[in-house]
Amino acid sequence: MLRFALLGAGFIGSVHAANLASHPGVEFSRIYDIDRSRAQALAETHGASAAADLDEVFDPENIDAVFIASSTDTHARHLVRAADAGLAVLCEKPIDLDLDRAREAAAHAAGRAVPVMIDFNRRFDRDYAELKRTIDAGEIGDVELLQLTTRGPALPPLSYIATSGGQMRDQTVHFFDLARWLTGLDPVEVFAAGSALSDPRLAEYDDVDTSAVTLRLPTGALVQIDSVRRTGYGYDERIEVMGSAGLVEAGRRRTGAVSRYRAGQVVDDGLHPGWFERVQPTYAAALAHFVAAVESGTPLTPSLDDGLKAQAIAEAATRSLHTGKSERIEY
Amino acid sequence: MLRFALLGAGFIGSVHAANLASHPGVEFSRIYDIDRSRAQALAETHGASAAADLDEVFDPENIDAVFIASSTDTHARHLVRAADAGLAVLCEKPIDLDLDRAREAAAHAAGRAVPVMIDFNRRFDRDYAELKRTIDAGEIGDVELLQLTTRGPALPPLSYIATSGGQMRDQTVHFFDLARWLTGLDPVEVFAAGSALSDPRLAEYDDVDTSAVTLRLPTGALVQIDSVRRTGYGYDERIEVMGSAGLVEAGRRRTGAVSRYRAGQVVDDGLHPGWFERVQPTYAAALAHFVAAVESGTPLTPSLDDGLKAQAIAEAATRSLHTGKSERIEY
Amino acid sequence: MLRFALLGAGFIGSVHAANLASHPGVEFSRIYDIDRSRAQALAETHGASAAADLDEVFDPENIDAVFIASSTDTHARHLVRAADAGLAVLCEKPIDLDLDRAREAAAHAAGRAVPVMIDFNRRFDRDYAELKRTIDAGEIGDVELLQLTTRGPALPPLSYIATSGGQMRDQTVHFFDLARWLTGLDPVEVFAAGSALSDPRLAEYDDVDTSAVTLRLPTGALVQIDSVRRTGYGYDERIEVMGSAGLVEAGRRRTGAVSRYRAGQVVDDGLHPGWFERVQPTYAAALAHFVAAVESGTPLTPSLDDGLKAQAIAEAATRSLHTGKSERIEY
Amino acid sequence: MLRFALLGAGFIGSVHAANLASHPGVEFSRIYDIDRSRAQALAETHGASAAADLDEVFDPENIDAVFIASSTDTHARHLVRAADAGLAVLCEKPIDLDLDRAREAAAHAAGRAVPVMIDFNRRFDRDYAELKRTIDAGEIGDVELLQLTTRGPALPPLSYIATSGGQMRDQTVHFFDLARWLTGLDPVEVFAAGSALSDPRLAEYDDVDTSAVTLRLPTGALVQIDSVRRTGYGYDERIEVMGSAGLVEAGRRRTGAVSRYRAGQVVDDGLHPGWFERVQPTYAAALAHFVAAVESGTPLTPSLDDGLKAQAIAEAATRSLHTGKSERIEY
Repeated sequence: MLRFALLGAGFIGSVHAANLASHPGVEFSRIYDIDRSRAQALAETHGASAAADLDEVFDPENIDAVFIASSTDTHARHLVRAADAGLAVLCEKPIDLDLDRAREAAAHAAGRAVPVMIDFNRRFDRDYAELKRTIDAGEIGDVELLQLTTRGPALPPLSYIATSGGQMRDQTVHFFDLARWLTGLDPVEVFAAGSALSDPRLAEYDDVDTSAVTLRLPTGALVQIDSVRRTGYGYDERIEVMGSAGLVEAGRRRTGAVSRYRAGQVVDDGLHPGWFERVQPTYAAALAHFVAAVESGTPLTPSLDDGLKAQAIAEAATRSLHTGKSERIEY
Repeated sequence: MLRFALLGAGFIGSVHAANLASHPGVEFSRIYDIDRSRAQALAETHGASAAADLDEVFDPENIDAVFIASSTDTHARHLVRAADAGLAVLCEKPIDLDLDRAREAAAHAAGRAVPVMIDFNRRFDRDYAELKRTIDAGEIGDVELLQLTTRGPALPPLSYIATSGGQMRDQTVHFFDLARWLTGLDPVEVFAAGSALSDPRLAEYDDVDTSAVTLRLPTGALVQIDSVRRTGYGYDERIEVMGSAGLVEAGRRRTGAVSRYRAGQVVDDGLHPGWFERVQPTYAAALAHFVAAVESGTPLTPSLDDGLKAQAIAEAATRSLHTGKSERIEY
Repeated sequence: MLRFALLGAGFIGSVHAANLASHPGVEFSRIYDIDRSRAQALAETHGASAAADLDEVFDPENIDAVFIASSTDTHARHLVRAADAGLAVLCEKPIDLDLDRAREAAAHAAGRAVPVMIDFNRRFDRDYAELKRTIDAGEIGDVELLQLTTRGPALPPLSYIATSGGQMRDQTVHFFDLARWLTGLDPVEVFAAGSALSDPRLAEYDDVDTSAVTLRLPTGALVQIDSVRRTGYGYDERIEVMGSAGLVEAGRRRTGAVSRYRAGQVVDDGLHPGWFERVQPTYAAALAHFVAAVESGTPLTPSLDDGLKAQAIAEAATRSLHTGKSERIEY
Repeated sequence: MLRFALLGAGFIGSVHAANLASHPGVEFSRIYDIDRSRAQALAETHGASAAADLDEVFDPENIDAVFIASSTDTHARHLVRAADAGLAVLCEKPIDLDLDRAREAAAHAAGRAVPVMIDFNRRFDRDYAELKRTIDAGEIGDVELLQLTTRGPALPPLSYIATSGGQMRDQTVHFFDLARWLTGLDPVEVFAAGSALSDPRLAEYDDVDTSAVTLRLPTGALVQIDSVRRTGYGYDERIEVMGSAGLVEAGRRRTGAVSRYRAGQVVDDGLHPGWFERVQPTYAAALAHFVAAVESGTPLTPSLDDGLKAQAIAEAATRSLHTGKSERIEY
């Protein structure tokens, strides 16, 4: 049994709490949140206890692993402290919005040799795992072109936008990771174009809501990613990978398989209302992977390095949004 | 070049006329219709001439083949006369609504050894040909269950119903033929249940508009056919064939590949408005088969015998509608 | 909190045990099985206790509801005893394979006025609920034709077949219930044709593995059901309902949304390997419905009467398999 | 009747010849080709005559319209001469690979006020017309993102590549036109990245076979186009258009609607083997539009200006392939 403490009792913290509570190999012990009452409420729901302070979290006598799901600006600090305490870490992305600070914290943790996993949960999607298997088995030949789509149904509140780091670092970063993971290659160049179409106030935050990114891989293969914040038709995510011998696609996911035939049209069940409904099962799968790998001592992925690299791509993409040029990616 | 005369200048006659006119191996010479002006109008459109009388049709000096597309009650008579004149015959189904008269005419034609083909055009559908290929190649193992659906968008006029022979002989008969052709087997028993749901006046004609038929093949394999006259959503036709090792399906055909994503739903292009739009290409394909086979002297299918057998099934099915029992089929 | 005892710790018992354990409104107390060690093992997994005898199950002091998931021949007896003890009952179908005994037990339970629900779990499928909503909202007009497909991947062991009551009572009965539920109508007549194609030994049990059933509803609407025991391509279930104004279909469910494009073909994810993977979520949904309805005192469906009626259709269908005639259904 | 002369009897010339021959409003008179015997052979097939020289083509006494389908380097010259002769012109794209020469010829033709249409045939695709209708009807709100895919099955011969003008001018140009037509907007900037992955010899021609293009529209809306020369899985073309209120997509077109269910997978009919099979019907539709518009005197589109603008985008995209920067488009 892996004894777990959870940092953060907000929305995503509650998601992780539910998964921790129902994983048979986890003893879900403590929850910490700066808002203690929030921690307490969540702890009660899941039979855990609210930690009085961080000492009760980073407590190697009683805790084996921490799940960092607190606000972004606390990730690096918690990571460092967990590493110092010798605890395994499952960390929400990003390590830090500032890439230098993120690298520093990652280097520190690496020095302590504790197992750390960045929660790029989409890698644990059933369909994406099948894409990876297909590619790795050589079924589509050499990878030559990827198309990734991520489109959210509604613009998050501007207060969220303000601290998000911008669309590349906040939304597209998951797909930078997926592109790296699926191909096993680190992109060398990135071009990004973006616009603020849903709300002009985005411009005040120097942010965009609709963007088109092109990555170049070292083999010359190309990647296109479109990211949208507000669709009008639900949450839309799909990936296709073309190789020299064929194409494999993880298509749009529907909420059901009902079709209604009327004169001249067929009305099918549509997409999920939001990103969470679409990716929900991947969180439990990611946690299961973490627990199994920690228990068996096998290497953890996505690793700290994976986290840093996806972030480095986001940095270069953000630069390109301003320069209008293809930017070299510095890892 | 096969010199063709066409009998019948009604709706289906015009369809065949257009195909005769554009087939490169056909010299489309003459059209006959009891309404001479109708024949003349159609002849002009396609550069043929209107026949003054039937002698100009059954004229082996100038004509090699006749296409019988006149009213049903004239088919048998024209078939016999064409056979006597030594002409090849492409004949709209049925040979005659009265099975005994149909058998007599067929026997007569068989005695003259002229090439005759019954125009069960659906056998020439691209997707159904692929079903047949798949089954014959053994890809689904032994055939065990078939489902055939044929659903028209609107009840034909009652005047049509009056002389149609009823749903089994008029609509379902095509699918009796398809079931025989796909499996290579002659059904031994048939059960049929039917209702008149769209128009109570159907009962006056002892006819139904919604029916469910079950056939038993000599191997024990079963066939389900549902036939509907009025759908509210266009023309709906599909076939699936289950075997011991898999299933093959010719799915519903859409008019286009456009999808419209809205909140909670996806609206796709629907089915064809009517049966004609759905099966139109099969008429030209059937004609091409006829011409090629006559020119090369290879056997013609669907044969006279195929026409009689599908009709025999329709007879037994019509009986079953009344008896509520499974009826043995007499070929 | 509803205090639950579970009867039966076999395969389906374990499924229900897991759902009882994770339902927040259930206190999962006791498990009984004639094989005590089996009960004990299952109880341990879910933090319940194994009941020493049936007195510990039918114990109104400590138990509010029983879940009858023991062998079929014990259902009626347990139902009667639970009713006498004033407990709510969630009962696996059928009440008894013998329809008279089932009616007797049901009448007894009805006399005690305890809440009883028959676990026709498929009614709680997300897509079937949407079919029902669509029909009830009048979106397809008057119901005129239903097609239901249920095809299992592999013949169950002959030992199972021996006590199953035959394909109609064991497999098709779920779809008799769905047809009643979706239309709100009780079929008046049934015709069934069947064959034993996968294993000739089925004939020794007077059973079939491939069958075609036609039901007639009091409105004249028709229902076709095909039931298969062994497909070669996984578990296949679909329902379509045609009305006077349109059609609604719950299509085949795929295990994923991955497509692989190759020359001339697209290979999509296929069907579930077995029926359980396909219907699994419906069990928890059915339980949730039971708990909510018992707690709020609202009527329970599917009711005892629903259970008896589906069984009455299965009786008549089984007769029809032998007589080759449409059989009147006696409720 | 529009009296037509055709210039060019190569592959695309034969396609147009067949359409000219079967259009009821066209009198297909003459064919010219520098290889006279080729012109003669094609003329015979379609009942036209081979023109002895260009005077017989640009002959307003006997000819009303010319179809320019000769080699690209002759288009501008023929256009000018047809305009001088007062003939209507249907011209294969491009007017000239050199944009300045193209502009000059277009200006000359415009001065003569003859009706001219550039044969961007894809605008006449049934599904793309439906996209346009949907967008124009406001059904998806304001257009914000387009994705266009064009992927050919096999690299054309290098001899073709040598004179093609490169992937942007030869292949992608159709999609630059579609993007303009669908949105009614002229892109202001273009970024293009490309690689030569299928054949290293492409580099000798300074050409690419796999490219990703991003266009910015004046509204800030973005367009992504991927173009591939060699897929391994047939010809792949699709378009999706996202707006503020929904998305509309013209999906991949399949060659049939047959599905084969096997254990764990469903094998559907795939894509067309080549681009021609995919777009074939659009040529006849484009011709029909031309004939109808010329006969009725309504304006012709795609116009000369449309041809020049698509080409201007291709010019800027070709520049961007080299500079790695977003390039402003000069119309």
